[in-house]
Amino acid sequence: MAIATVAFQGERGAFSEEAAQKLLGRRVRVLPQDTFAAVFAAVVSGQARFCLVPIENTLAGSVYENYDLLLENRLHIVAEVNLRVVHNLIGFPPTTLQSLRQVYSHPVALAQCSRFFARHPRVEKIPFYDTAGSVKMLAERGLAGAAAIASRTAAAVYHARILKTHLEDHRENFTRFLLLSKTARVAPRSNKVSVVFSTPNVPGALYKSLSVFALREIDLTKMESRPLRGRPWEYFFYLDFIGNVREERCRNALAHLGEIANFLRVLGCYESAAR
Amino acid sequence: MAIATVAFQGERGAFSEEAAQKLLGRRVRVLPQDTFAAVFAAVVSGQARFCLVPIENTLAGSVYENYDLLLENRLHIVAEVNLRVVHNLIGFPPTTLQSLRQVYSHPVALAQCSRFFARHPRVEKIPFYDTAGSVKMLAERGLAGAAAIASRTAAAVYHARILKTHLEDHRENFTRFLLLSKTARVAPRSNKVSVVFSTPNVPGALYKSLSVFALREIDLTKMESRPLRGRPWEYFFYLDFIGNVREERCRNALAHLGEIANFLRVLGCYESAAR
Repeated sequence: MAIATVAFQGERGAFSEEAAQKLLGRRVRVLPQDTFAAVFAAVVSGQARFCLVPIENTLAGSVYENYDLLLENRLHIVAEVNLRVVHNLIGFPPTTLQSLRQVYSHPVALAQCSRFFARHPRVEKIPFYDTAGSVKMLAERGLAGAAAIASRTAAAVYHARILKTHLEDHRENFTRFLLLSKTARVAPRSNKVSVVFSTPNVPGALYKSLSVFALREIDLTKMESRPLRGRPWEYFFYLDFIGNVREERCRNALAHLGEIANFLRVLGCYESAAR
Repeated sequence: MAIATVAFQGERGAFSEEAAQKLLGRRVRVLPQDTFAAVFAAVVSGQARFCLVPIENTLAGSVYENYDLLLENRLHIVAEVNLRVVHNLIGFPPTTLQSLRQVYSHPVALAQCSRFFARHPRVEKIPFYDTAGSVKMLAERGLAGAAAIASRTAAAVYHARILKTHLEDHRENFTRFLLLSKTARVAPRSNKVSVVFSTPNVPGALYKSLSVFALREIDLTKMESRPLRGRPWEYFFYLDFIGNVREERCRNALAHLGEIANFLRVLGCYESAAR
């Protein structure tokens, strides 16, 4: 069987690549892109069969740009994966923990390792555009006394050494990624549905929308709102719920939501990731 | 009466200063800060009596950092104001629209004026850290053929000229700001309430939470969710609704929400801004 190509944002070795391997195995062919918009475009144009994008992190919150891109592009969610974010200190010989003076990484990763820097006050934090990109830069430039904070995959991709693992302050640091494709695919074991909808701007509209799930004892797992551009103070609502669109209960709930909403789209039905 | 000091994020002439003037008048004393965290801290420490922070924009969405800071700091929302975001092309003599070659501004402002740049393809967009800050920089350095995109207030503060107004692509571009204080203040005419709560992680909890408002015909105007740090896949919910906390109907709704939620805080009760 042909190996599927997966587009993601960031350099080779990004946490998205680690998530792609966790979901699809190590033989996946990857297509790194500079921006999330380019990641979606790679699937729309057929350059990649899939893309994998982060949608929420348990510390930083939702990746709102990707919620907007889900609505703008007609791609389908076909899978999800949760990745524990483990920050590793990565360097090249002769750099050691003792000779360390500078650490490069994305500002969010640096901020998530504040305890390490508090314990090593002589080590300077240097913000860089990307976690894996900072390992790549060290591989190219060979700066003495410098290391990067990035994924285990980044160390493997650039043949670097992990000087220390678990630099992150909080172990409860997970990122949820979505796998998107041009074609919808609903497996019998799919047990999660994502939808986006908007309602007329009348009192109680959101409550009525949620009632279609509550009245059928359908469990919601996530709700997000984003502005409806051109209609100030109105919103799109994104909902994830447990079920399969082929079950009668879910079909009825979606038909019921269709009566209340003035816009409704199913973004995908897929297997819920292990938590 | 003493003039109140208001802290805000950005340079003198920022859209936040324009919003502060709209809400409190032109004689307000301003305290610009580098970060939103510093803005909140200025009120907590007593350095400023108030701060004014953007909470949502009708095109870009919520300012999530300020939602998190509302929870982390025990400040009270005492007023809100909606500001139409009008982007002005601002320069210093001898720069004119004809001699223009470079435009500096915050990346979001540059992106919101894409039609202007499409019509003037020889004009280069240069991302800068701040809208008003780019006017300040031009005032200091006097770059020939350069202008900035910023508020009308920024032009006034730095004694610059408005070369062209309404550069923004969408007229429906509004930012909602909140005025925060260390002391709560509920006026009889206050007609909007903001709360934050979390619920036990059980099916139907969000639906039940919204029912306390729907059953009393209380209108919700905004809902936002943010991750509950340390408890993966659980969320804080922020709600705005129409009412006054002294009305019986609202008191009952909040008491009812208190039965369902495992955490509840009223962030403020204030007068709803004109829309």
